[in-house]
Amino acid sequence: MQNIFLVGLSGSGKSTVGRVLAERLGKPFLDTDTLIEEQCGARIPAIFTRHGEDYFRDCESRVLAQAAHTEGGAIIATGGGIVTRSENRALLAEQGTTIFLAVEPVVALERLDAQHLHSSPEIRPLLAGPEPLAALETLLAVRSDWYQEADFTCATQGKSVERVAQEIIALLIGSARLNAMPPLVRRIAVGDGYDAVVDWGGLGRMAHYLAQLRFPPRVFLIVDSNVHNLYTPVVIDGLRQAGFAPEVYVVPAGEASKSQRQLSALYDWLVEQRAERGEALIAFGGGVVGDLAGYAAATYLRGVPLVQVPTSLLAQVDSSIGGKTGINHPQGKNMIGAFYQPRLVLADPATLLTLPARERTEGWAEVVKYGIILDAELFALLEAHADTLRDFLHPPVTLLCHIVARSIDLKAVVIEEDEREQGRRAILNYGHTLAHALENVAGYGVWLHGEAVSLGMVAAALIAQRAGMFPVAEAARQNRLLEALGLPVAYRGPVSAQAILAAIQLDKKVTGKKVRWIMPRHIGEVTVTSMPGDLVEAVVTSFFAQERR
Amino acid sequence: MQNIFLVGLSGSGKSTVGRVLAERLGKPFLDTDTLIEEQCGARIPAIFTRHGEDYFRDCESRVLAQAAHTEGGAIIATGGGIVTRSENRALLAEQGTTIFLAVEPVVALERLDAQHLHSSPEIRPLLAGPEPLAALETLLAVRSDWYQEADFTCATQGKSVERVAQEIIALLIGSARLNAMPPLVRRIAVGDGYDAVVDWGGLGRMAHYLAQLRFPPRVFLIVDSNVHNLYTPVVIDGLRQAGFAPEVYVVPAGEASKSQRQLSALYDWLVEQRAERGEALIAFGGGVVGDLAGYAAATYLRGVPLVQVPTSLLAQVDSSIGGKTGINHPQGKNMIGAFYQPRLVLADPATLLTLPARERTEGWAEVVKYGIILDAELFALLEAHADTLRDFLHPPVTLLCHIVARSIDLKAVVIEEDEREQGRRAILNYGHTLAHALENVAGYGVWLHGEAVSLGMVAAALIAQRAGMFPVAEAARQNRLLEALGLPVAYRGPVSAQAILAAIQLDKKVTGKKVRWIMPRHIGEVTVTSMPGDLVEAVVTSFFAQERR
Repeated sequence: MQNIFLVGLSGSGKSTVGRVLAERLGKPFLDTDTLIEEQCGARIPAIFTRHGEDYFRDCESRVLAQAAHTEGGAIIATGGGIVTRSENRALLAEQGTTIFLAVEPVVALERLDAQHLHSSPEIRPLLAGPEPLAALETLLAVRSDWYQEADFTCATQGKSVERVAQEIIALLIGSARLNAMPPLVRRIAVGDGYDAVVDWGGLGRMAHYLAQLRFPPRVFLIVDSNVHNLYTPVVIDGLRQAGFAPEVYVVPAGEASKSQRQLSALYDWLVEQRAERGEALIAFGGGVVGDLAGYAAATYLRGVPLVQVPTSLLAQVDSSIGGKTGINHPQGKNMIGAFYQPRLVLADPATLLTLPARERTEGWAEVVKYGIILDAELFALLEAHADTLRDFLHPPVTLLCHIVARSIDLKAVVIEEDEREQGRRAILNYGHTLAHALENVAGYGVWLHGEAVSLGMVAAALIAQRAGMFPVAEAARQNRLLEALGLPVAYRGPVSAQAILAAIQLDKKVTGKKVRWIMPRHIGEVTVTSMPGDLVEAVVTSFFAQERR
Repeated sequence: MQNIFLVGLSGSGKSTVGRVLAERLGKPFLDTDTLIEEQCGARIPAIFTRHGEDYFRDCESRVLAQAAHTEGGAIIATGGGIVTRSENRALLAEQGTTIFLAVEPVVALERLDAQHLHSSPEIRPLLAGPEPLAALETLLAVRSDWYQEADFTCATQGKSVERVAQEIIALLIGSARLNAMPPLVRRIAVGDGYDAVVDWGGLGRMAHYLAQLRFPPRVFLIVDSNVHNLYTPVVIDGLRQAGFAPEVYVVPAGEASKSQRQLSALYDWLVEQRAERGEALIAFGGGVVGDLAGYAAATYLRGVPLVQVPTSLLAQVDSSIGGKTGINHPQGKNMIGAFYQPRLVLADPATLLTLPARERTEGWAEVVKYGIILDAELFALLEAHADTLRDFLHPPVTLLCHIVARSIDLKAVVIEEDEREQGRRAILNYGHTLAHALENVAGYGVWLHGEAVSLGMVAAALIAQRAGMFPVAEAARQNRLLEALGLPVAYRGPVSAQAILAAIQLDKKVTGKKVRWIMPRHIGEVTVTSMPGDLVEAVVTSFFAQERR
């Protein structure tokens, strides 16, 4: 990534947004006004008064050039008038990506008002007159064409700083401007085989990956509503430029969309589009859209090509891999579905930057799961970096890509051996028997899947521990790691243990009325076994009761 | 098969039912009363008058023993009083299957009335008094326990002769009493591979075949309502006796059951039954139930074992083989589905004996199709036996089993090469592009699928012929054979050619908006190609217009 320049009027939010962007992207933040004041040893109004605007603009051009040469690139908030000089505009165009933060003058003024700034003429000399709104309007009229030369325009009105930052990150990702490291590619040897690609910022290279699969140009993007708002326009632009003809179908975000009703509506749309057998469906979003669109791809015309583009951590490390697709039945999660392998999984961990914290956090549950069931080393790595991973500021890109790729590796090894969960694949359900029961009883969406899995693993470990199968110290380590990553480890809520125990019986892993439990022996090792009913009942009863008062 | 003895009161229908049974099963029909009259050279009342009842009973026992030794077995209608002698009852028990045709005396009397028989004392000496109803009631009271010793009781009241014969045949089949020849077994090498068994009367050996697959004892029979009424009780008995625990779900017969609504109801039932992953679904019925239950098996819990027990000719030679499952979308047939291979196909051509004629006939369309696309020899065989095959009286069991097995062979070779219809499998759709369009436009169920395929093949052959690809004489041979087998070869109905042309565009075989036509070159050889739009339009327009006036 090169520099990110933020341009726009005073009050458009360049500095506040810039600081958030810098944290999210792990880059230094620079502000040309601040740099000028530092270098000149004076406040800006004083520079204006003492030396005039031309002198100020010279300083500004100089610090801009310096800032643009920051090693590894920086987030650079510029003065509102920086675009007035053609040399500056040329530098912005050459040295990075320019984002114009658009705002109506009246709103800009409100924001400045809120900061008690516009009234201090010593701080914003160009707005120092008696009619600051008229002054701002004039400035915008003069500079508007120059601002529009930016690579992207981001409307900021009515949006939080956090949201504006998310939108900018989405634009950077979708336009292939994030380019941290070479992609990690894992061949998954199930069916005809397919690649799972972990590529930081790879979303912007979707057309490149699709082109290798030689689909017809028309592709059907099934997008969840959150992802849609952030990513669809820029991703579609990229696909169109590469010669694809994308059609977009938006699915409401949330587990409730994994329903017969949503599925029928999606079929109707595909029929209406006259979607044909060779044409690809692209499941673009989190686990819900992956499961729903994946199942539609498995069953529309008895199967059309599927590409998974998971945008949540949970989907990247788990649900997009291995071909499980499906919808929920009112009586149970994923009761209806198919094993259907995609033709490609494109996982871009940069999309985690735009996830709400809770949805990012839930994904760690599945990663911890891999540690417990298969990989003590991965578990230790998570322990060592739990703080960074939870907060997700200055994200450790290489580590993150490694963790996602490692998770995919671990899942791939299991499913390659047992695609249809006849045996060993069941270990991937560690913590899931209780998680599914909880989700079912509490109502889908009350607990995010990863949160339920976290609770399910805590309870499962407790069963194993009480049975003398799993050392107390290791169970404690598991729970500490889950907590450190921001996941719930104790239940609070209205659900009764009786309801949980009843729901367990409907689990897909039940055979001959016996629940097969995935029980940890050590961190990195599990066994599949039935457990004494009274022990399970005792643990479930205490776990789902103690926190209710 | 040994002898079939029909016992019951006068007026229970033993002779009329017996004659129909004999035609259907291709066995001689014998009537003990007639045999006695022939041997004694006198009418029965005369024998009674001259020699008394004991003498008559002696004669009766003798002719019964003779009749029972008919080579290959016979259908034997007995005198109402035959059960009064213990030696006769012993013979019935040893020498074949006894069916008690149950009827209320008052109904029996009505039937005799209708035949103007009870009033002729010279014909039924035991009913010769002034109170024939009281006499019949007394006879029934005396003989009731003996009648109940029969292997099966068939209630005849309110049923046509045809229906009673169907029920008896169903009982014989279901209880494994038809045993014409060793089963023909074809291994189908798709996925893990599975057997398709063609076994005349094999329905009665379902438990034997299932036992080899080592399923859990609980099995879920999804049965269409027609098959259910005839076969479920006896088949379930057989399964229970072999240690299975069958559960039955009935689907209304007819194409309308291939709907999202029926599928949802079936899922609900499976969930309610707590059906588990290893437990098998048995699709028991025609193509509709095979497609619906097959799709449910493919998708419930992401796939449970499936056994296809096709009972229609169409299902036996086509739809149960090759793993296509699915339901219809209001906009198109089989738009939603999965390729899902069964673990076993058990095809019992004896079930064709109980099919309504129209449903038996439609099946020949797919067999003729195999002849056209792949096998000129099969085509010639059908030409040689068209009359026998159409009428289905004294069915040529060996020939029939051979034709069903050959059809399975032909389909297996194609799908083994191309399970998912990426290429060659498309030839199986000869005639189907227009058939699907017609079914869709006319409304599902107006035309049976095989009837629509027959019309589709006639029209497709016409397109090929007009294009100079298919000799006129061979097209005529195709159409003659279809007609000889009782299939429609010209369209009559309200459907417009425009609607057909529009519906063709939604066909699953459309690629890049181009319809791929399966065009015959010779009988036994087809090619897949696109055809000039104006030629298709001209043929469709004339074919679907000429017969409308």
